[in-house]
Amino acid sequence: MSEEAETVYVGSKPILTYVLAVINAFQRADKVKVLARGRAISSAVDVVEVARRSFIENLKIENIEIGTETVGEGDQARNVSTIAITLSKEK
Amino acid sequence: MSEEAETVYVGSKPILTYVLAVINAFQRADKVKVLARGRAISSAVDVVEVARRSFIENLKIENIEIGTETVGEGDQARNVSTIAITLSKEK
Repeated sequence: MSEEAETVYVGSKPILTYVLAVINAFQRADKVKVLARGRAISSAVDVVEVARRSFIENLKIENIEIGTETVGEGDQARNVSTIAITLSKEK
Repeated sequence: MSEEAETVYVGSKPILTYVLAVINAFQRADKVKVLARGRAISSAVDVVEVARRSFIENLKIENIEIGTETVGEGDQARNVSTIAITLSKEK
């Protein structure tokens, strides 16, 4: 099992798509990082909450970070908020 | 100045409305808790990021918690995700 965290990017697909991706990622690594930006931040929290409550009994939220990224260039550049939720499993 | 945290609930108004509420809350307390649920979670992150980047230079994110609340009763009951972001100012 990899020491490095697997990453799951949350977008606009159904929540369960990403819950499944998190479950699969835990087959390959001890830590899984759930990332999202903009409107998908709410979905990322949904993904973690559904995974924790209904699918992965010993899921542990290690860390939550928020930040800002610049998207686009020149006149089109705008800031979007980001979230990174790092998950592990309680032994 | 109060020892207890002031609370700002983020909903569907413009982001700057809540940024102003956070700035005002810091007049009354050393800690401010930004709360939101459902789709407003993304806005809560926007509020904190805009406050941190453009308005409150020494803003510190003390803690971020996510959870689930049940809204409605009986057949109408459904789960919504929640976020609580606790803020303070670096001395």
